[in-house]
Formats: sequence, C-alpha cells, structure tokens
Amino acid sequence: MRPLATHLAPYRVYGDTASGNCHKVKLALDLLGLPYRWHAVDVLGGETRTPEFLARNPGGKVPVLQIDDHTFLPESNAILCYLADGTPLWPGDRLQRARVLQWLFFEQYSHEPYIAVARFIHVYLHQPEDPRLPNLIARGNVALAETERHLAAQPFFVGDALTIADIALFAYTHKAHEGGFDLAPYPALRAWLARCLAVPGMSEMPGR
Amino acid sequence: MRPLATHLAPYRVYGDTASGNCHKVKLALDLLGLPYRWHAVDVLGGETRTPEFLARNPGGKVPVLQIDDHTFLPESNAILCYLADGTPLWPGDRLQRARVLQWLFFEQYSHEPYIAVARFIHVYLHQPEDPRLPNLIARGNVALAETERHLAAQPFFVGDALTIADIALFAYTHKAHEGGFDLAPYPALRAWLARCLAVPGMSEMPGR
Repeated sequence: MRPLATHLAPYRVYGDTASGNCHKVKLALDLLGLPYRWHAVDVLGGETRTPEFLARNPGGKVPVLQIDDHTFLPESNAILCYLADGTPLWPGDRLQRARVLQWLFFEQYSHEPYIAVARFIHVYLHQPEDPRLPNLIARGNVALAETERHLAAQPFFVGDALTIADIALFAYTHKAHEGGFDLAPYPALRAWLARCLAVPGMSEMPGR
Repeated sequence: MRPLATHLAPYRVYGDTASGNCHKVKLALDLLGLPYRWHAVDVLGGETRTPEFLARNPGGKVPVLQIDDHTFLPESNAILCYLADGTPLWPGDRLQRARVLQWLFFEQYSHEPYIAVARFIHVYLHQPEDPRLPNLIARGNVALAETERHLAAQPFFVGDALTIADIALFAYTHKAHEGGFDLAPYPALRAWLARCLAVPGMSEMPGR
C-alpha cells in the first residue's frame, strides 16, 4: 500500500473551454502530464455569479484551479505560475523567471484587454458593429506588433524553449482572427504559433 | 581589496515619481535597502518615445529597471518580483507565492486600468468632464469592494506581513481619491493603507 501522500487528487478546473484564459490552464496541465477534471462553467448563463461559484472565487471569474477541498486559485497567469513552478515551463535564474513574468503581465495588461475582448464581442456577443471594436483592433495591433518585433529575434518569448509566457500569449493570439485581426503582417508571430503547436501537449482552443 | 563582484552598481530606475507603477519600484527598493539612481522620465513630454528610451524598453513605458549595462526589465509587477525574489517581500511556499501573483495580476487587470486611469485623467490631463470617467469609477469601485472584502478578514493581502502584493495595490489605492474615488465605504481598506504606511520604508507617492 502506498503512502496516502502519493494519492494526490486530480486538480479540478472550473472553466469555459472556449475561453483563452481557461485554455491556458488546460495547456499547462496537458504539457506537464498532470491529471485534472474539467468542470464546465456557463459564464454567459450567469454561473459565475451563483453563491456556489462565488464561494470558490469571490471575483466571479473563470478559470479557477481547485487544489484541494478548501483551496481555490483564480487568475489564469497565477495558475500557470503555480503549476509550472519548479518545472521546465518556468525555468532559469531570477532574471529569466522575471522575464517570463514580464511577458505574463504584458499579456494581461496590453494584449488580452484588446485581442480577447474583440473576440468576445464577435464570438460570444455576435455584435460585429460594436462601436468599441475599432479601438480594440488598433490597440490589439500595437500589442501584436510588439510581439512580432520580439519574436523576429528569438524562437520563444524567453529562452530557447516553450515556457508559460508562450502558453499565455498563444491562448488568444492563435484565435485573434476570430476577433477581426489579420496576422498576415506578422510572419514571425505566425512562425511562432506553428512552433508552439509542434510542442507535444499543445493544442488549439475548441470553437464555440 | 574586495572582489569585484561585491562592487554592485546601483540599480537605475527610469520612471515618473508621480506614477503609481513607478512608485511601486521605489517602495520595493527602499524596503529592501537597495541602492538606486532615479532617472526622471517626462512621459507626457514624449520622452518614452525617443530612440534612446525605446532601446531600453521597446514597449515605450515606464518604469524600467536597469540591472546592468545591457539589461533592462520593464513591467512594474515583474520588477517587484525580480527585486523581491528570495526576500521576505515575496515569501512562503509555492501556493503562497502564487497567491501573491494572484493579487499582482488582479492589480494589473482589474484595478489599475480603472483606478490609475481615472487619476491620470484628472491629475495629468486635467479633464474632469472626460466621458470615460463614470465607467472607470464604477469598475474601479468593483475592484475596491473586492479588496475591502478580502482585507476585512486579514491584515495584508497574503499572510501576516507586507508583501509585494501590498506594495502593488497600495500604489494607486492610496491616491484613488485623486481620481474621484471615495474610500469612506471601505474601512478595512483604509485600515490596511495605514498599516502599510506604518511599515518602515513605505511612503506616500509625491504629488504632481
């Protein structure tokens, strides 16, 4: 009989399979070969506003990683850091680890609010005439251009192999066209997307 | 004669003293007792768009931490992680460290885009009639209410002492009134601000 400590319960993920922020968590778990159960959450149907869900995450957002009976971690990029800590997905010395964080914060502040939100308006709300879209497209292209410049000089965001920085930026970049973005002007970015998808465990996000 | 390796050059910070994102970096350096030189950057005057500045940070934003002659780190919260790594400002096990990151990502995604931007419109642009303000105030109050709920149950954001999560959230919360926010409905938040300021090394951001 094995000691109890090795009988780790699988992680549970509360998420929406068509959300890039949730897909990030699936990618990290798949790449690390960690067992998990996916609990589908209907965001537009109000499921993140129920008392049950708010007890898990008072912020009312997906994804949430359930670590044990009483421990829930929100914020997609914090979940990536938690899962990848001590693994090759978040490698290197203090500076290299901070570089990964640099791109994780870039993703949440300068990339996701434009690229993910434009896609949300198209794919979830079906409002292609939404007046916010031109500004979202303009600012999203600023972010895409910054990643293009960076990836013209190196194969992955930090170092020579895929890290959680790539997972985070892959999530919405590979579906940017669904938000009305054209990746044709970004050849280094398109080559990087193909490079990411060639890594065993990586996968495209399912459609909605 | 001491070995050269101990003659560490002081850090250099490129920043705007009246920017909360830049003030975070000053607070971490002061709390850790690390020497640094502050290089004032005139953001509204276009200094972040010069070729010299873009060579340091292609993203064209402050703050930037200069680590050595050729190494520059942007993104305020990544700088906090870099400086605090291995210190009591980012303590604990893997879960506790991820909790700190949870609040750092919350700050950049759900707090700063409303609370800092409302203050920027008032203090930098002097446009109190800007049509974006009502939405910024509404969404900023959602973030303030979430921090109030959290701090009603514990003295600091993670654990029993000040961490970089507190530094990041202190930066714009203690100046939220300059953006038109009223902290009167948030007693736990106000008590936390006082608790933060009582820690040696903490300081209010100078006016602009």
